[in-house]
Amino acid sequence: MTYKEISKEFLDKANVTIGDVIKVTKEDISYEGILLDRSEDAKDAYIVIKLDSGYNVGVNIESATIELIEKGDQPKIGFEGDTIEKDPNKQNISIISTGGTVSSIIDYKTGAVHPKFTAEDLLRANPELLDLANYDVKALYNILSENMKPEYWVKAAESIADDISSGADGIVIAHGTDTMHYTSAALSFMIKTPVPIVVTGAQRSSDRPSTDAFLNIYNSCGAALSDIAEVTVLMHNSLDDGDCALHKGTKVRKMHTSRRDTFRSIDSEPIALLRDGKVKSVNLPYVKRGENELELNTDIESKVALIKSFPGISSDIIDYHIDKGYKGLLIEGTGLGHVPDYMVDSLQRANDEGIPVVMTSQCLYGTINMNVYSTGRLLQDAGVISGVDMTPECAYVKLAWALGQSDSLDEVKKIIQTNIAGELNESSSLKYFLN
Amino acid sequence: MTYKEISKEFLDKANVTIGDVIKVTKEDISYEGILLDRSEDAKDAYIVIKLDSGYNVGVNIESATIELIEKGDQPKIGFEGDTIEKDPNKQNISIISTGGTVSSIIDYKTGAVHPKFTAEDLLRANPELLDLANYDVKALYNILSENMKPEYWVKAAESIADDISSGADGIVIAHGTDTMHYTSAALSFMIKTPVPIVVTGAQRSSDRPSTDAFLNIYNSCGAALSDIAEVTVLMHNSLDDGDCALHKGTKVRKMHTSRRDTFRSIDSEPIALLRDGKVKSVNLPYVKRGENELELNTDIESKVALIKSFPGISSDIIDYHIDKGYKGLLIEGTGLGHVPDYMVDSLQRANDEGIPVVMTSQCLYGTINMNVYSTGRLLQDAGVISGVDMTPECAYVKLAWALGQSDSLDEVKKIIQTNIAGELNESSSLKYFLN
Repeated sequence: MTYKEISKEFLDKANVTIGDVIKVTKEDISYEGILLDRSEDAKDAYIVIKLDSGYNVGVNIESATIELIEKGDQPKIGFEGDTIEKDPNKQNISIISTGGTVSSIIDYKTGAVHPKFTAEDLLRANPELLDLANYDVKALYNILSENMKPEYWVKAAESIADDISSGADGIVIAHGTDTMHYTSAALSFMIKTPVPIVVTGAQRSSDRPSTDAFLNIYNSCGAALSDIAEVTVLMHNSLDDGDCALHKGTKVRKMHTSRRDTFRSIDSEPIALLRDGKVKSVNLPYVKRGENELELNTDIESKVALIKSFPGISSDIIDYHIDKGYKGLLIEGTGLGHVPDYMVDSLQRANDEGIPVVMTSQCLYGTINMNVYSTGRLLQDAGVISGVDMTPECAYVKLAWALGQSDSLDEVKKIIQTNIAGELNESSSLKYFLN
Repeated sequence: MTYKEISKEFLDKANVTIGDVIKVTKEDISYEGILLDRSEDAKDAYIVIKLDSGYNVGVNIESATIELIEKGDQPKIGFEGDTIEKDPNKQNISIISTGGTVSSIIDYKTGAVHPKFTAEDLLRANPELLDLANYDVKALYNILSENMKPEYWVKAAESIADDISSGADGIVIAHGTDTMHYTSAALSFMIKTPVPIVVTGAQRSSDRPSTDAFLNIYNSCGAALSDIAEVTVLMHNSLDDGDCALHKGTKVRKMHTSRRDTFRSIDSEPIALLRDGKVKSVNLPYVKRGENELELNTDIESKVALIKSFPGISSDIIDYHIDKGYKGLLIEGTGLGHVPDYMVDSLQRANDEGIPVVMTSQCLYGTINMNVYSTGRLLQDAGVISGVDMTPECAYVKLAWALGQSDSLDEVKKIIQTNIAGELNESSSLKYFLN
């Protein structure tokens, strides 16, 4: 049992161990459910209970009473260091935890949420996962995803490639949702994969009653065992705990600050829907398991800026980035791909100095077209490259990756406008608006 | 007749004048419809025909033949300088043209679209408008909206207030769509209005067969005659020429580069739907005609920057703006309102130097909540102000306007978090996702 100090004392007094069905009463609220294990340093005054609904709740034991309802089975999972006993009849999934809400618990002192759970903790709290596969678990880092940096993408890609080389049949990455789509785009460009690579997260932390972490992880493991050998993002497809959507890693975006179904495919639809750990329906063609050989290309230029245009923006911001030694600029322009025409000279200067400038749209949906309006023509004359129908976020990542492949302006332009990982739609995408 | 040189010669030869039903044949394509007038300097080789479908088409007359099908009525509209004869039984709408696609024609030399039509040209091409009301028309400027600047918002607001003072019963602003939502937000904060102020535009220029300009202008005039005395945006509500949606000027955003129904209410729904120039249904409460007195407050600080966060962003960008004398910073953060934690020191510096920093989300939908995660707590400690559920674009405009009202950090914070023009939703907005 990993409960320590206050919480251990509290549980010992009632002769309660992990797996027992208990009832904890606090003032006029009672929680009944199975006592779950907690992470190694659970020295505070909280215990975690799995309710009948399947949700986990953390209860402060101060001034609480506890009652043993039924002795439970001792946990069957043998945790030994970083590995769990393997069933030779099952496939192997590698779960890599990077932090984020899916791996977070509430800091009860401040009420805020910290990344804390490791991938191993996730299995410990959700033993149902073990019915699906064998797992290798690894906590690569433990950060909230707003703190992600390009060099972490590299480390994650290398770690994934190692696991695939070591025989993993599928990969699940537990990740914060804030920048999950940036990471999924980066992994899409960096790895050609023979097996599924599924990035997942949660909008409510694992120790909250309303957590979506378990269903997302469970269905991600289902996706990792499927035939869809692409880098994908799996999250809830609606507000309720029904289907999960499996999005192309390059065509997805976080679109709501708090809804569980916040991730949406942009100018596309999800590759597939999953339910109960199985692919339920497939919408798009995909790269099949084993179709690609493993290939890793993590070269990336981190001196790239994303600049959003707005009425009143100064062209100085372009010169600033040139003067600071930036190697590429991603513009989030207006409409079909515009910035104020007084910025053209500075953009021309970037081009003259060999710095690629790629245009995307703050509309998010639809395709860049710099042929329609006079401003677009001017921008093209100044060397601005169309990001076609890429989201600004995906195009930013692709530009950084393209600059890792070549420092030739022409070569970078060619990479930007060549489909590498499903990021460019060939046909009209008008129909996938706000779906 | 305003056709000149080549086109005049071509029409004269066939004894055709404006209003006649004609058939123009070019190679194996024929166009049959009513010959429309064109703008004053139409010296090129194009004529404009109104097809039976109601759409206008520009035809190059080189190697074309023309046939007179039926002599039409001469145009009944008496254009005299900037005014048109008024019917004392009708209400008065002021149409202010600022440029944009709605006022644009194709430059047939380059194939690109230029702002060119004035509001008067719009009436000339769409005489059906005259059934609805009397019009005062004025071309305030003639620019594509990516070139809009805060000082143009001021000029537009002043012009609108003049027209209202002079007795206009409603205002229609013809505007480019790229930054229409920035302008509608600015007018929302700058003007308390006793009459409707409707900003409208088009996704296809007025002389293209597929133009949405006419229906948008026509329904905007309907909205200008309605009881909804707010600053609104009116555009198509779907791909077809069915209903138009009337959006709150502070809650709307261009969401698709090319669809006609690109403008969507964010965390809200349209106030009303219009059809055939009439309000068809109302969704939200609104400020009624005459409820407010006219009040104009155009003070605005133009030294405000909009900065979008991304993985790998440098905190130098914050220091750069402080050093450059910016008076306010609008952050488009990730998720619930985050930036990488290494940026906190620079944001603290902004706060220490009296520069308000307002947080919004690149998710676009949903509400900022900096209480949930540790990063949000750090940002709040550094003085970062929540933009609540405002879009980044609306919040940027509001911050610039708030800094025009006061240079006190506390006062600006109070203005940002006080609802002024429907920009802050009091209740949960979860249900208005991607509608």
